Amino acid sequence: MKVIVIGAVAAGPKAACRVKRLLPEADVTMVDKDSIISYGACGIPYFISGDIPSIEELFSTNFHVLRDIKYFEEFKGVKVLTQTEAVFINRRKKEVTLKELTTGKEFVLPYDKLVLATGSTPFIPPIEGVDAQGVFTVANMHDTQKIHELIKRGEVERAVIIGGGAIGIEMAEALTDMWGIEVTIVEMTSQLLPKIVEPEIAFMLQAHVEMHGVKILCNSQVKKIIKDDSGNVSGVLTTKGELAADLVIMATGVRPNIKLAQEAELLTTPQGIVVNKRLQTSDPDIYAGGNCVQNWCLITGKGVFLSSGSIANRQGRIIGTNIAGGRDLFEGVVRSFVIKVFDICVAKAGLSVEVAREEGFNALPVMAVQLDRAHFYPTKQLIYLQLTVDKDTGRILGIQAVGLNGDAVVGKVNTMAAMLKFRPTIEDLSTLEVAYAPPFGAAMDILNTAAHVAQNTLKGKNRSIGIMEFLSFWQERNTGKYLFLDVREATDAKALVEKYAPYWVNISQADIKRHLSNLPLDKTIVIVCNTGMRSYEVQLILDKAGFKNVFTLRGGIAALKMAGIDLIQSS
Amino acid sequence: MKVIVIGAVAAGPKAACRVKRLLPEADVTMVDKDSIISYGACGIPYFISGDIPSIEELFSTNFHVLRDIKYFEEFKGVKVLTQTEAVFINRRKKEVTLKELTTGKEFVLPYDKLVLATGSTPFIPPIEGVDAQGVFTVANMHDTQKIHELIKRGEVERAVIIGGGAIGIEMAEALTDMWGIEVTIVEMTSQLLPKIVEPEIAFMLQAHVEMHGVKILCNSQVKKIIKDDSGNVSGVLTTKGELAADLVIMATGVRPNIKLAQEAELLTTPQGIVVNKRLQTSDPDIYAGGNCVQNWCLITGKGVFLSSGSIANRQGRIIGTNIAGGRDLFEGVVRSFVIKVFDICVAKAGLSVEVAREEGFNALPVMAVQLDRAHFYPTKQLIYLQLTVDKDTGRILGIQAVGLNGDAVVGKVNTMAAMLKFRPTIEDLSTLEVAYAPPFGAAMDILNTAAHVAQNTLKGKNRSIGIMEFLSFWQERNTGKYLFLDVREATDAKALVEKYAPYWVNISQADIKRHLSNLPLDKTIVIVCNTGMRSYEVQLILDKAGFKNVFTLRGGIAALKMAGIDLIQSS
Repeated sequence: MKVIVIGAVAAGPKAACRVKRLLPEADVTMVDKDSIISYGACGIPYFISGDIPSIEELFSTNFHVLRDIKYFEEFKGVKVLTQTEAVFINRRKKEVTLKELTTGKEFVLPYDKLVLATGSTPFIPPIEGVDAQGVFTVANMHDTQKIHELIKRGEVERAVIIGGGAIGIEMAEALTDMWGIEVTIVEMTSQLLPKIVEPEIAFMLQAHVEMHGVKILCNSQVKKIIKDDSGNVSGVLTTKGELAADLVIMATGVRPNIKLAQEAELLTTPQGIVVNKRLQTSDPDIYAGGNCVQNWCLITGKGVFLSSGSIANRQGRIIGTNIAGGRDLFEGVVRSFVIKVFDICVAKAGLSVEVAREEGFNALPVMAVQLDRAHFYPTKQLIYLQLTVDKDTGRILGIQAVGLNGDAVVGKVNTMAAMLKFRPTIEDLSTLEVAYAPPFGAAMDILNTAAHVAQNTLKGKNRSIGIMEFLSFWQERNTGKYLFLDVREATDAKALVEKYAPYWVNISQADIKRHLSNLPLDKTIVIVCNTGMRSYEVQLILDKAGFKNVFTLRGGIAALKMAGIDLIQSS
Repeated sequence: MKVIVIGAVAAGPKAACRVKRLLPEADVTMVDKDSIISYGACGIPYFISGDIPSIEELFSTNFHVLRDIKYFEEFKGVKVLTQTEAVFINRRKKEVTLKELTTGKEFVLPYDKLVLATGSTPFIPPIEGVDAQGVFTVANMHDTQKIHELIKRGEVERAVIIGGGAIGIEMAEALTDMWGIEVTIVEMTSQLLPKIVEPEIAFMLQAHVEMHGVKILCNSQVKKIIKDDSGNVSGVLTTKGELAADLVIMATGVRPNIKLAQEAELLTTPQGIVVNKRLQTSDPDIYAGGNCVQNWCLITGKGVFLSSGSIANRQGRIIGTNIAGGRDLFEGVVRSFVIKVFDICVAKAGLSVEVAREEGFNALPVMAVQLDRAHFYPTKQLIYLQLTVDKDTGRILGIQAVGLNGDAVVGKVNTMAAMLKFRPTIEDLSTLEVAYAPPFGAAMDILNTAAHVAQNTLKGKNRSIGIMEFLSFWQERNTGKYLFLDVREATDAKALVEKYAPYWVNISQADIKRHLSNLPLDKTIVIVCNTGMRSYEVQLILDKAGFKNVFTLRGGIAALKMAGIDLIQSS
């Protein structure tokens, strides 16, 4: 059996090697346009930052052997043609026309089974000056080397990153942390990680990144990239003014490479090549996987584009199995995501509230803020966790979390994500059994707590507002319409009471019943505590006493603090 | 509505407070024999070790308010009677007879709904001398105080812990790490954490604990506890000799407290009080939760006894909801477990291979050893992960993992555990989507890898042996029956080849096809690499070349090393 694999980064090599393990007699050829193959593109920021001392580590095995042509031939029995482009697929003859990029020579190879693992390409918006020297995308080893060399030569003092998605943020850390470069991120929307996480979570991330010296301009568009006389970039003109820059990183998203598939008249959508669960394209002898295919979202049942080295690897293996006569299925994706920036980790799976509403769900946000360890255990950090819940069915549509203990944050998100394909409800999460010992959580895990908050919210018992709504109330704090009721112990509330009486009052949870008559019936009361739990209990007491317009602040003062909002400093 | 809650540690307070939140007008009384209530017993080792400076933290809220009678009355509206024992339940009259332990006075309280949260009691085997001064269990705050005072006064130089379960091991760390006490654990069975984890995982834990100076005697029984003339403990006589001791900790398991339920003629089993999914006992007005109830194992469908503060809390909340007219269900348990000892973490969920076989499953062990981060990411630690797989159906019955990055270890186990109630197969785990970025894993997550190993094992493609079988082969290494084929790179294999040629040979994976003729057809060949992955690929090549009796070592040299086995030192 002759197998040709087009693309040799993630899905391609995995498919090729799997075929050879299952069918050692198969004749497997892998082709790639590039000279460097099988690299971990997701490691680029860590090479730029200097955390990884040599770029070769990004294309070596964990036993320090380079994953080059020789490796694939000797260890895996796979033939490799690099600097070779697949220019045409003749499906009727089952042939691929290949072109040697160094010589321009074309030749034809026959196949029994073909694998498209053509990946994705950075999207470059049509901005004037984008062709200047010193403007890069983060997508391959060659540009990575060039960026690294520029920096090492000390030629970069100021960098502008266009795009506040994962790659932009990771690159911002890489340039700042090790090299002391002044970095500005320019983001078109109102938040970092747009469409990935809620504004609240994005604000927490932004506060942390800014604390480490990165400037972030949201709601800003790039109008022009400015070059000097020799064609080198010298600045970026945005809707918020001009930024000087010796280096510009374009991190404005990627698009699936579907041209070859389109020309072969395979079914495609803007999200990628269409495949079935066996990862066959509309031609059953042609498989496709990795960034070039459209994925099925297990929450919405719709096609989505995703760029993920992890999904690419798993799809590659399934393709290999199926080519070798197996019957493995790729059921779909839950759109999981994680990023570590400086000391903070943001992770998510499923849909944000915004995306869920766009998809037609009656989605509600629910927040729990809790320590990653038992509260009496010495080392501990808060985790801020948000669920997206469908109000009509109680189904959990998504989860997001942020915190300083990244392994714990991603652990919680993965635990929930593992249930997503089974369409879990809040009852499933409410009784979910998480392994418990004081060094790893509270007796009531934050995941259970979040489900409980969701239950109370859906039953109408817990009425909370998020940081955004709180801030809009706070801006009107002098109007007399609002009372902020701080139910923490007196020492915790003191500073705010001193500064903001009479509209910030403190009655501790234990005293509330004795002081109900001191509270106004005609104001909107916002109950505040450290993480939101005590506020909820006080809200129930106020409800029973007949108060209307009572809300709690989701995540409490801890959430405000994490989002960089200091009420004492606010004016 | 009158609600009486018997027991005020975990399930009890949770149930009582939940009722009050949902039904503020309910009259809720909680009674407990002890004077200290609502404490985190699982925190005891951390108080003994000095990690927690004051014992009050174990019964305080996370906002530093003592959870005493006043707290429950003022914050929660729950009446509390401490030092009060429930001596009899009159189900017909719906009354409980209570006894004030300080005065001996008995009185009767009526109930509409009753909650049994009577917990569990340490099992004390009938050993001579067990009544000596200085012999303790780890179960309540009073004994904890006494142990702590003894240690602080410098009266403990040597301690013997009877029982190698979780509490015994945690206490061993507490006594050793901070206080420098010479500690010996005496364990009846052949391993630590018997019936919880596989021997391989237990060996890894044991090697780590021994490295920190704790002596462990497995396969040892205690014959007698020796006291001096004043009745103080002076030693422990075991089947392996006498151990001097100033302190003895009995950590030989706990039993559910079911006497009160039995006397009220409620249905009970040796695993605890029988409850339905709503957590009602055989009397629908009497609920029960926490350590005193029988739990349903979601894997076997059978009743089991479990001692867990976490499950107790979740059950307490469900009881509270149901008493208040809700309909929450507790579906069962997946028997999750986690422990941190010194720098190592062991976590599990579901069944070990041994337990699964006892339950009638055709269970197989499968191991994956992989880094917790991308291999090119600077900070990284190995995780050793084992699945229990049903050979007949491909169903995953359990997971265990061990490693130095505890948050990552427990995160992987929880992720798998979340699927257990949905009866996942290896296909579910094979395509499980885990959030990926280099600081948190490999593109192919260890959970996916483990599923792939399982697939290859069930298809008969991957034939591996565990550490125990390897050691039995290794003991016969001079017989000429075995060849140990090390397929790592030459530098890694050098020391073993030098010491153990001719039965330890090195042919790297890349060279294997050229050297097949050098391998003997008449020996059992054990292929070894660092973690087991390369061994598998070489095994496929040997299979194809017609070799019989070829096996790989599960987890490779890394697993041996983690289990404290150094082949160079072995003789």
